[in-house]
Amino acid sequence: MAGKIKIGILGATGYTGVELVKILKHHPQVSIAFVSSQSYADQRLSDVFPELKMICDDVLLAPEKTLEQSPDCVFSCLPHATSAALLMPFIKKGIKVIDLSADFRIKDPDTYEKWYKVPHPCPDLLEKAVFGLCEHNRAEIAKATIIANPGCYSSSIMLPLLPLFKDKATTLSLIIADSKSGVSGAGRSLKLTSHFVEVHEDFKAYSIGHSHRHIPEIEQEFSKAAGKPVAITFSPHLIPTNRGILSTIYITTNRTAAECLDIVKKAYAGEPFVRVRQPEDLPSIRGVAHTNFCDMTFTGGTDDRPIIAVCTIDNLVKGASGQAVQNMNIMFGFTETAALL
Amino acid sequence: MAGKIKIGILGATGYTGVELVKILKHHPQVSIAFVSSQSYADQRLSDVFPELKMICDDVLLAPEKTLEQSPDCVFSCLPHATSAALLMPFIKKGIKVIDLSADFRIKDPDTYEKWYKVPHPCPDLLEKAVFGLCEHNRAEIAKATIIANPGCYSSSIMLPLLPLFKDKATTLSLIIADSKSGVSGAGRSLKLTSHFVEVHEDFKAYSIGHSHRHIPEIEQEFSKAAGKPVAITFSPHLIPTNRGILSTIYITTNRTAAECLDIVKKAYAGEPFVRVRQPEDLPSIRGVAHTNFCDMTFTGGTDDRPIIAVCTIDNLVKGASGQAVQNMNIMFGFTETAALL
Amino acid sequence: MAGKIKIGILGATGYTGVELVKILKHHPQVSIAFVSSQSYADQRLSDVFPELKMICDDVLLAPEKTLEQSPDCVFSCLPHATSAALLMPFIKKGIKVIDLSADFRIKDPDTYEKWYKVPHPCPDLLEKAVFGLCEHNRAEIAKATIIANPGCYSSSIMLPLLPLFKDKATTLSLIIADSKSGVSGAGRSLKLTSHFVEVHEDFKAYSIGHSHRHIPEIEQEFSKAAGKPVAITFSPHLIPTNRGILSTIYITTNRTAAECLDIVKKAYAGEPFVRVRQPEDLPSIRGVAHTNFCDMTFTGGTDDRPIIAVCTIDNLVKGASGQAVQNMNIMFGFTETAALL
Amino acid sequence: MAGKIKIGILGATGYTGVELVKILKHHPQVSIAFVSSQSYADQRLSDVFPELKMICDDVLLAPEKTLEQSPDCVFSCLPHATSAALLMPFIKKGIKVIDLSADFRIKDPDTYEKWYKVPHPCPDLLEKAVFGLCEHNRAEIAKATIIANPGCYSSSIMLPLLPLFKDKATTLSLIIADSKSGVSGAGRSLKLTSHFVEVHEDFKAYSIGHSHRHIPEIEQEFSKAAGKPVAITFSPHLIPTNRGILSTIYITTNRTAAECLDIVKKAYAGEPFVRVRQPEDLPSIRGVAHTNFCDMTFTGGTDDRPIIAVCTIDNLVKGASGQAVQNMNIMFGFTETAALL
Repeated sequence: MAGKIKIGILGATGYTGVELVKILKHHPQVSIAFVSSQSYADQRLSDVFPELKMICDDVLLAPEKTLEQSPDCVFSCLPHATSAALLMPFIKKGIKVIDLSADFRIKDPDTYEKWYKVPHPCPDLLEKAVFGLCEHNRAEIAKATIIANPGCYSSSIMLPLLPLFKDKATTLSLIIADSKSGVSGAGRSLKLTSHFVEVHEDFKAYSIGHSHRHIPEIEQEFSKAAGKPVAITFSPHLIPTNRGILSTIYITTNRTAAECLDIVKKAYAGEPFVRVRQPEDLPSIRGVAHTNFCDMTFTGGTDDRPIIAVCTIDNLVKGASGQAVQNMNIMFGFTETAALL
Repeated sequence: MAGKIKIGILGATGYTGVELVKILKHHPQVSIAFVSSQSYADQRLSDVFPELKMICDDVLLAPEKTLEQSPDCVFSCLPHATSAALLMPFIKKGIKVIDLSADFRIKDPDTYEKWYKVPHPCPDLLEKAVFGLCEHNRAEIAKATIIANPGCYSSSIMLPLLPLFKDKATTLSLIIADSKSGVSGAGRSLKLTSHFVEVHEDFKAYSIGHSHRHIPEIEQEFSKAAGKPVAITFSPHLIPTNRGILSTIYITTNRTAAECLDIVKKAYAGEPFVRVRQPEDLPSIRGVAHTNFCDMTFTGGTDDRPIIAVCTIDNLVKGASGQAVQNMNIMFGFTETAALL
Repeated sequence: MAGKIKIGILGATGYTGVELVKILKHHPQVSIAFVSSQSYADQRLSDVFPELKMICDDVLLAPEKTLEQSPDCVFSCLPHATSAALLMPFIKKGIKVIDLSADFRIKDPDTYEKWYKVPHPCPDLLEKAVFGLCEHNRAEIAKATIIANPGCYSSSIMLPLLPLFKDKATTLSLIIADSKSGVSGAGRSLKLTSHFVEVHEDFKAYSIGHSHRHIPEIEQEFSKAAGKPVAITFSPHLIPTNRGILSTIYITTNRTAAECLDIVKKAYAGEPFVRVRQPEDLPSIRGVAHTNFCDMTFTGGTDDRPIIAVCTIDNLVKGASGQAVQNMNIMFGFTETAALL
Repeated sequence: MAGKIKIGILGATGYTGVELVKILKHHPQVSIAFVSSQSYADQRLSDVFPELKMICDDVLLAPEKTLEQSPDCVFSCLPHATSAALLMPFIKKGIKVIDLSADFRIKDPDTYEKWYKVPHPCPDLLEKAVFGLCEHNRAEIAKATIIANPGCYSSSIMLPLLPLFKDKATTLSLIIADSKSGVSGAGRSLKLTSHFVEVHEDFKAYSIGHSHRHIPEIEQEFSKAAGKPVAITFSPHLIPTNRGILSTIYITTNRTAAECLDIVKKAYAGEPFVRVRQPEDLPSIRGVAHTNFCDMTFTGGTDDRPIIAVCTIDNLVKGASGQAVQNMNIMFGFTETAALL
């Protein structure tokens, strides 16, 4: 069909890749030029995911074969380091890229190396990359050629707090994010911690105590908004569900919960994917599953106790592939909600 | 069998009641004199719970019929207010009682009425009741005639923090308990929030913002140990599992995580049901499910961030019926681990 | 918008009602004129289902208020007997109706009364009703004014076997359908058998031994296709999932599994929602969840053993609301896959 | 402790191995001499399964080190072929062995090789092995030195049907077993089909069409009881639960369901672990989970339709480690229910 842009997907056989295919198949202005996979090269995507039969029966290209392609936009669902390396040829050809890995999120290559244990593959490109949190960086996204799609946990923590950081009259000291994620966030690779019997009827914390890799991007964006260094405490937990993130965030602030609620309501008025809820109507994962919505509210604060924000997203949609498509919609001037509502 | 004590169970058809029956059936020094139920009176317990066939086929007595009974010990698994009212006749006969409801936990009847919205049924008995957190009140429990079995969430929050409160050289300011519980904690009565389809693949917070009824007993016991008023922030969440509680607790203290770990290790040395773990070996619900164990560790504190305690119990065992049997074992001079290991 | 048809939904607050709203909201040629509910009248649908906020904030009409409405098509998600009674006024006004209850499925009012224990509310309308199994009754559906949307289990059993019944050279004797369904099939009303703790980590059979109400409609349609009475054995089971039906069907036939596969492949060639799979690629519930697809295959037959068909659908989509919309698309001459792919 | 027998466990770090440890730790006449593991040699069992801390902190021996041991009884939880090979040295020393693998179940080495794709490691020992279905082979088990512990699916299919085969006046023709198992039956090794996200909210059939390896042992035992070759159709399915098997079995017989029920009631009168239930009280997995019980009933047969048996067991207990301990109890003259009730 004339007028459609052509897109490519690197690493299409992980959970975010498949979610991206499903979303883009509903997009009226997009056609999929290629899907790639190292492990499943030359098989059909629908052989790997039979649920996609008659939806996307494209043959998966080996990564090196994608270099012959010149689509209008490339999404990468590859792991960090590999992602930037395989995106570089497209970037050099002037093709717009949206990277779902962490590679373009951290502006400082030393910080990247400290947290990711590898030197950054292309530090010189970091400046060009735009942090793709759509509700906050829409103008830059519209002009961007490299989008760093935010981490799933990060989105659920930044969306409720960024409006407070941006409000000059609001102070924020302690920030503790107690986050809970479904298992798809851990990816499709095989590990004992994703074995059904080990996860089902279990619940556990992991990577707590200042060790999870989403911390630097959150602290970077908060510090940028605050105009000074911001430190957070972040504790991820594994829920025995397929999807969804709920973050319970404790903050010390000069604002009441009602005032926080007002600030975010104003900040997100007219936003198609943010739903600010009343405290008596707490967000749940069920309420956002399989959608690009972010639900949030503020409560707490009794007798000087901390204020509590609760925020939910679907980790695979607003926390990954949905937000990636929202970024694409902004970059290409499409209706921002296309294929997402 | 000679030498066995006879026990009665009021409200045997809820989840804690059934768990109690299962545990006591393994106890060599106990025989069950009666099980009662309002809703299922005159049916066999094993008709209501077929899993108990050939294990406990006793006929359920209507509550009023239990008054003719004179067992050595009565457990109540009834809801608050009803529980104290139905236990009173036994208490007056000098029979030892273990109340799994909240009725004897709060020392101040006004506080009870504020949180439970009913006047206390027998405020004069409150002084005699002992708060049955076994590891901390063993001596009083041994002499007690009324045991207030602690709340499930409360146990998971008090066990890691009480040793710190009791340590004179430790200061504790901010206390935030972000707790997660399986659905059996909400009981067996019918409500939309326990409907399978509403809970499965969901995760949500509830009663957050200083409203959950376990708060006053936790603040009471912490204040007693600290010798001054202690305020906590407590946020419960619902996990799509049948059992288990995991509490992630954030504290501000003059201690490092390693020092906290040392303090609790010393406090619980020799305890048969508390397992203090290393931070790299985080407690999980799976690790304590169907047992009377409480697993805990301490971590965090990087660059002045809060210290994080993680604690897990099975809400129906250490959080309810297991601890109730542990209390009975102490009261009657049995081996403390009988029927529990 | 000009050109859109207006539809009404009776009983919009059950699981099939909500699914219908979600599907129709994606339909380019449909606008929702009203949603109704007895229990939640005058509340917004999105107050009952917060996931629908900003998607469908319509106020729910009390059933009696819907009578003032004259939409182009009415869907009923009400329980049997109530459904036909509330649809009758619309039918009399000449409005097309699609009934998701069983009321118009059974042609013989005596059979209806025998299985549903109430006299049929409008036996004279039964002749006009078309059994809305789209792939088999497309021509009649196109001309129909009353559609009896098939039962969820029924669809999963009829779709694989009807092509065999219609093939003159194929004989079929024994038919055993061992079916398994997610819990949403039992509805949203409160019962102990849908309580999370009673269902999670459980699996059970129910209504087995010729007692489930989907039996008469299956035997009716099979007998019609076979031209003689057909009897089936049908055993439903409850899976601890939200959605999906998998039917394992054992048949004795003069055909091999490969021949059965050929027959259904031919029968469903070009069908947009039926995917016939190879036996080594068995259908799963995951493969059809949240879609209108029906996946099936045939295997077995070694050494004269029975042939085995395996068929999966999403009980709320192809087994209910998706098929209802597919029926609407056929009735109104829309693209059959509109809002469904 | 004097009088205790010493036992060894080969392959203690799989799900059946751990279950065995948990059961035996409650056995008053047993002490664990060693636990072994190839992959985790020299680590503590409780490092691999933290839930076992303070319960079994034994160090895991490498398999070759177990040869220096001379316990009274060895259990093997190893995979087939490896199991017989590592048990042989113990058998030669005259030590009693209980093999939870398939190695000693099939009497005919050619049949073994056909289904298991390896030559049998010690065909000469097959004659000495006793098929350890306790309720049916108690006398032989008491004298046995090699026990072939039955397969999990097999137990759930043989227990309801064997009494019918043994009844001279009962005829049985068609036998179809539609079985459903929790994921622990697939073991703890890593495979995509046991990945949480692939299993949760899914349900599927696998190895259907005369291909599952439990078929030959079932047909062998049925043929032996019937005195003539018996063929079965067996379809296993995967339930998204950790534990449990439910088999729905369709049979053609000259008996009514009520007569079948009578026959099994008589056959199992006095059996401590078999509970024959009324058809209106269908067995469920929940009813037998974490126990050594086998629940069953018979129903169906309306208008010449097949009779339906429903049978449930816990795959890790009565279907594996519980039955293994029951076998040990019989072999050593202990109370048959020791550690199992």
